Amino acid sequence: MNFSNRIQEMNFSPIRKLMPFADAAEKKGIKVYKLQIGQPNIAAPDSFFEGLHNYEGKIIPYSDSKGILPLRETFSKNYKKYGLSMGVDEILVTQGGSEAILFVMMAICNIGDEILIPEPFYSNYTSFTCFAGVKIVPIPTKIEDDFHLPNMEDIEKLITPKTRGILFSNPVNPTGTVYTGKEIETIGKVAKKHNLYIIADEVYRQFIYDESIEYTSVAQFKELENNTILVDSISKHYSACGARIGSIATKNKELLGYFLKLCQSRLCVSTMEQYAAANLINTTGNYVEDVRLEYKKRRDLMYGYLQNIPGVVCPKPCGALYIFAKLPVKESEKFAKWLLTDYSYENKTLMVAPGPGFYQTPNKGTSEVRLSFCISEDDIENGMIVLKNALEAYKNIEDSI
Amino acid sequence: MNFSNRIQEMNFSPIRKLMPFADAAEKKGIKVYKLQIGQPNIAAPDSFFEGLHNYEGKIIPYSDSKGILPLRETFSKNYKKYGLSMGVDEILVTQGGSEAILFVMMAICNIGDEILIPEPFYSNYTSFTCFAGVKIVPIPTKIEDDFHLPNMEDIEKLITPKTRGILFSNPVNPTGTVYTGKEIETIGKVAKKHNLYIIADEVYRQFIYDESIEYTSVAQFKELENNTILVDSISKHYSACGARIGSIATKNKELLGYFLKLCQSRLCVSTMEQYAAANLINTTGNYVEDVRLEYKKRRDLMYGYLQNIPGVVCPKPCGALYIFAKLPVKESEKFAKWLLTDYSYENKTLMVAPGPGFYQTPNKGTSEVRLSFCISEDDIENGMIVLKNALEAYKNIEDSI
Repeated sequence: MNFSNRIQEMNFSPIRKLMPFADAAEKKGIKVYKLQIGQPNIAAPDSFFEGLHNYEGKIIPYSDSKGILPLRETFSKNYKKYGLSMGVDEILVTQGGSEAILFVMMAICNIGDEILIPEPFYSNYTSFTCFAGVKIVPIPTKIEDDFHLPNMEDIEKLITPKTRGILFSNPVNPTGTVYTGKEIETIGKVAKKHNLYIIADEVYRQFIYDESIEYTSVAQFKELENNTILVDSISKHYSACGARIGSIATKNKELLGYFLKLCQSRLCVSTMEQYAAANLINTTGNYVEDVRLEYKKRRDLMYGYLQNIPGVVCPKPCGALYIFAKLPVKESEKFAKWLLTDYSYENKTLMVAPGPGFYQTPNKGTSEVRLSFCISEDDIENGMIVLKNALEAYKNIEDSI
Repeated sequence: MNFSNRIQEMNFSPIRKLMPFADAAEKKGIKVYKLQIGQPNIAAPDSFFEGLHNYEGKIIPYSDSKGILPLRETFSKNYKKYGLSMGVDEILVTQGGSEAILFVMMAICNIGDEILIPEPFYSNYTSFTCFAGVKIVPIPTKIEDDFHLPNMEDIEKLITPKTRGILFSNPVNPTGTVYTGKEIETIGKVAKKHNLYIIADEVYRQFIYDESIEYTSVAQFKELENNTILVDSISKHYSACGARIGSIATKNKELLGYFLKLCQSRLCVSTMEQYAAANLINTTGNYVEDVRLEYKKRRDLMYGYLQNIPGVVCPKPCGALYIFAKLPVKESEKFAKWLLTDYSYENKTLMVAPGPGFYQTPNKGTSEVRLSFCISEDDIENGMIVLKNALEAYKNIEDSI
């Protein structure tokens, strides 16, 4: 039987393809610290479960393709907390941030069109562009610059007649970089000048750890209203990755109309999870701030350990849930596999996400890894002790692997 | 700003585009009987809600991209009830049957490839093929033949070097036709001879009303194992359309591997709804059979009324939740709109799904409508009374509209 070219070309998730090796290590009785994935371990707020349990319907009907109104209201009110104005009719609920990105690609790009993305970037962007037949053109960023953006001219050099938009996460997954107001303005200028969409994936908006940083969203700029598409998700903010509740928001009315076609094509987003998420607006206490402070503590802990491992280089991430570190290894993919198949320290090992999975450009990120600090402090400490010992052991044998 | 060609070409859901007119009628105080959509009104089983409420986790984590194991077990056991053997490793949970169809298109077709579909067909198939850049080649069926399939030669005439598969629902949405064993064998022969996939959308499997009909699934034929892809959903069986829980099942291992890439790209299906659906295996009593008998009663009721409306022609549907009827009107689209904007009988009107929405071929189905009988008996009776009076009123004024 035949298979499509696109499905053969699509990559297996680079983060998930190490999973069988981790499973095998666990079967051998080795404790595996999982630093490869952004799976928060902080309890979701009670409001989520209350929203679920308070559902009184006897059937689970198709809901509004746009998303249930109470959930769009919750998203709208949440934007207001961050100084962003998005009305309920400017927001569409999506099946996670993933569907939001896919819908954007489908709506703004023809087959073969191009999207600029600062590199390294969230590896799943590649899946959505592959789905939509869109070519990613990376905007290179460097560890020496803390992964900040190049200047306007360097970005403009990458633009061709096929360029349709600039997609970026901010705070950045995988580097934790938070773009400055000036950088966001630069992106805006480029987009305005070349008639490009700006797709801002702000699913880590709440996770900025340094009070000196003033967060700037592209959605603050009125003159960019028609260019701007905000992508959001409750996944990380509320430890609800598995709920698959995200959103697209834009003030571009024509574009909203087109997104609605896509929403209608899949009928609706999971109804029960929408009721659960809508009730997040009733979260009590300082949940969001408490979570931020907890992750800040974990970032500091992991960063502190990494500073003391010889040969490790990493910027201190200002946001998100990850540290993107350069390790004293030649190929982080080999190292990541070796950790699971051949190494343990006091019967413990760890799983990391190899750098090349976050690059499209060949031979980039070969010594880098993404480490997630959304696990417990104990796990971070143990993981870092294993990493230090593993790197010591590895340097003597690397060339023979 | 620019929009993609595909998004501009994509249709708004023909069923949903009448919605604003229905809303306006309701605002005027008119009762609108909604026969246009397959939204069951029978209570979902308690087991669904128990599955939801019994979830004891404190976070909502990403779940297995394949779907949680207990849910794949539930699907597998359910197949066994229908004499079909699909193991847990041959089943992938999808975000509704919708995502399953989309994944199939992405995995087996290149841009521009062709899929045969008996016409009339479920209108959303067009959205998924449009998404994937796939061309639908309709296999014509006729109301006079109760929408059964043409013979093998006539199907083969439609095959080109670009044909990749045959997609059909069985029982058929929108006609209620149930294909005979011989028809399924014919499809199998065509597929085998021309190396095509068979995509059997069996989401209405349980709704066959005539005991004399022996249900035949393409998945019963061992020699077609590598060609066959089953698409399923809990939506209609368990009044859980909004849960968006579906599945792909196939014994083609290579294809399963490719589907897994697509599953990984969107991380997972909504976790909470998966736990709810997994517990459907613990449904007590004769839920499934009771529901079938209830819909059988409703089918008989609606069909009886339609037989007594002058000029209405329709086969008695053997399965699914719809009657596809030819009305004594020239353009069912105009009629459907008129019902909502200009007509009421004792302050009541109805909403129907116009026939052309189920055809790709231009000028087909112009007098036809799809009527859903998954609403209450009262609503069916009232709806049919309104329809009878509306048709009488319409014949005098049709030419002036």
